[in-house]
Amino acid sequence: MQINPERFLGDLHQLRRFGAAGVGKGVSRPAFTKPEVEARLWLADRITQADLKVEIDHAGNLFGLSDGPSLLLGSHSDSQPEGGWLDGALGVIAALEVARSAKEAGGPPISVVSFQDEEGRFGATIGSGVWTGALSLAEVDQLCDANGVTYAAARQAISKHVTGAVDPAQFTGFIEPHIEQGPWLDRSGLKVGVVTAIVGFREIEVTLTGEQNHAGTTAMAFRRDAVQGMVAILAALNEQLPGLADTRTVWTTGRIEVSPNAAPIVPGRCRFTVQWRDADDARLDAMEETILAMTRQIAADRGLGLKIAHPPNLRPSPMDAGLRQALANAAEAICPGKWQHMPSGAVHDAGYVARIMPAAMLFVPSIGGVSHDFAEDTDEADLVLGLRVLAAAAEQAATV
Amino acid sequence: MQINPERFLGDLHQLRRFGAAGVGKGVSRPAFTKPEVEARLWLADRITQADLKVEIDHAGNLFGLSDGPSLLLGSHSDSQPEGGWLDGALGVIAALEVARSAKEAGGPPISVVSFQDEEGRFGATIGSGVWTGALSLAEVDQLCDANGVTYAAARQAISKHVTGAVDPAQFTGFIEPHIEQGPWLDRSGLKVGVVTAIVGFREIEVTLTGEQNHAGTTAMAFRRDAVQGMVAILAALNEQLPGLADTRTVWTTGRIEVSPNAAPIVPGRCRFTVQWRDADDARLDAMEETILAMTRQIAADRGLGLKIAHPPNLRPSPMDAGLRQALANAAEAICPGKWQHMPSGAVHDAGYVARIMPAAMLFVPSIGGVSHDFAEDTDEADLVLGLRVLAAAAEQAATV
Repeated sequence: MQINPERFLGDLHQLRRFGAAGVGKGVSRPAFTKPEVEARLWLADRITQADLKVEIDHAGNLFGLSDGPSLLLGSHSDSQPEGGWLDGALGVIAALEVARSAKEAGGPPISVVSFQDEEGRFGATIGSGVWTGALSLAEVDQLCDANGVTYAAARQAISKHVTGAVDPAQFTGFIEPHIEQGPWLDRSGLKVGVVTAIVGFREIEVTLTGEQNHAGTTAMAFRRDAVQGMVAILAALNEQLPGLADTRTVWTTGRIEVSPNAAPIVPGRCRFTVQWRDADDARLDAMEETILAMTRQIAADRGLGLKIAHPPNLRPSPMDAGLRQALANAAEAICPGKWQHMPSGAVHDAGYVARIMPAAMLFVPSIGGVSHDFAEDTDEADLVLGLRVLAAAAEQAATV
Repeated sequence: MQINPERFLGDLHQLRRFGAAGVGKGVSRPAFTKPEVEARLWLADRITQADLKVEIDHAGNLFGLSDGPSLLLGSHSDSQPEGGWLDGALGVIAALEVARSAKEAGGPPISVVSFQDEEGRFGATIGSGVWTGALSLAEVDQLCDANGVTYAAARQAISKHVTGAVDPAQFTGFIEPHIEQGPWLDRSGLKVGVVTAIVGFREIEVTLTGEQNHAGTTAMAFRRDAVQGMVAILAALNEQLPGLADTRTVWTTGRIEVSPNAAPIVPGRCRFTVQWRDADDARLDAMEETILAMTRQIAADRGLGLKIAHPPNLRPSPMDAGLRQALANAAEAICPGKWQHMPSGAVHDAGYVARIMPAAMLFVPSIGGVSHDFAEDTDEADLVLGLRVLAAAAEQAATV
């Protein structure tokens, strides 16, 4: 097949007109908002023009189908409320370019997908979750956005375009091209990452309850200070977890709420999250054991009440060996020595898809590692290089 | 003089009808609210009935004056929004009982005060601050409560009762009786505390600025995590400050704000307070040096931006040796071996008054150390015992 870099970049820039933020190349295109639906219908037109068959399922996922068994490529075209022009969009337009180039060349058969609500207006990777059967449409329909709008109500925006269910059995595999959203490729000067696994994550929400008191009259020895309990726990985790971690393992306390949250009052309650991510489920288990043990011990030592909530986990998703090999072969042929194997620290639609068919991912660099920000960007030469690797890998994988 | 415990307790229970919360003996009587003004005017009537001269100054402070030079006793009759029946009220009614008993006995000359807004609807100890000249009425008039109401507007509620300035030079000294608001007397089974000094406090508000990032894709080694900076600082202070502290020294982080405060995002900004209190200004200085040095060093080591704001400090207020001795003599006579010298961990009106005349404080126990809560209470026998010590000390001090 003969890809067309100008056509690819042209479509990518056209897509960013939908929901353009007016700040750099940034976009605001959350699932089922007006610009997101307009972008989806524009994509449907482009798919039709590429002589692929448009189908839209009940969850809002958009497909461009080749006849017969085919390799599926794609990602998502919704964005964060303050998102970049490439997160998701790159993978959809690169898939479109490869599928239409293959169509023009008379094969191999390649199909395209843009999943819905990957970015979490209602919950992360909803569209691929429903399509792969990991989530039911009935449960997803109950999910609410920050303003209390349900998925069921929101998806009415595209209901008249729905053609029905799209059978996953027609696809031989799935490759998702994506920006890295991290600094590793950019820092090392590499051009392509072949994803080994999408990391899983665990999260706990810890609530410590002590005794609210006057910060002048309550001696240190008599205090049951919820914030000091949190400090002790987080400091202990920073001592213990490095012994269980490799260089990509991460843990984060991103949310803290203190009550009553006033400078002259010994805080009676403190709630905080601990989230940890790794590509290895056994390591996630070992970290969980340490995190829970340290938290329980420190709360008990300090006479603090303890509640631990467990939001839903996500298990690591290893990528398919055959598709990874196809990507590695293509990368080594096109940019020898300028690519690497690497895990994905972020969650992607390919995680759900990997549960039902061979799946893999291709990363291109994110400048400065920035994403989920209007400033997100990638050099256009790197976008085109990634497209070439995708096309070569897809041609190999779809022809096998 | 012959005090009347029933009259004293009767007035104390009458006062708690104003702003009664309907929960235990709790009251809600913030400065210049309707129940607070009604309570103040009821107190003015009781002062008149005691044959003392009512005067109200522009700040809203209420005085009951004896003729000629006199010893001043009192506290405040405003309360926290969710306050107890004794915090402030005890000192005002005990003062009233001693002053009227002295009046009935033909001397010594004792006057009464109820300061305004000790509890901080507009700012702590405002009334005594203005009366002693530490604050100007013009600056206080600009202060706003949580709803944006100014002191200037609020004090209109009592303006038609204002008689004018009350000259502090007519008073030979000031004694403030108060509940302890801490656990020391209650825990040790003692009945009276003679206050050595009102502790001072210092406070800093620290803002750490790192880099907001994706909690999955950003490796630990590349993070500039504002929350982890805070944890390191607070853990370091818990290592360093005990070496500078005595058993009454306290430090508190009561307020924390994290941005963007979401579990899957490495926090880019964290703002928190550190407040420390002690009766010794030199110790406050030494702690400040350590706190600032640790904070600056850890922020620099982690590449975090640092801003430190310094809200107003309050210097420790040593109590007058002569008045302390009068209180100690009275306590030893009335409850030998059941009293102690102790600092006040809380701020009181006596702190401002001590700047312009000899001042002292007398504490009675707080059950469980609870205050600023509807549940605040003290055994009535302890209230009466405290009244007896106050009367004996006042008689001695006013007669000298």
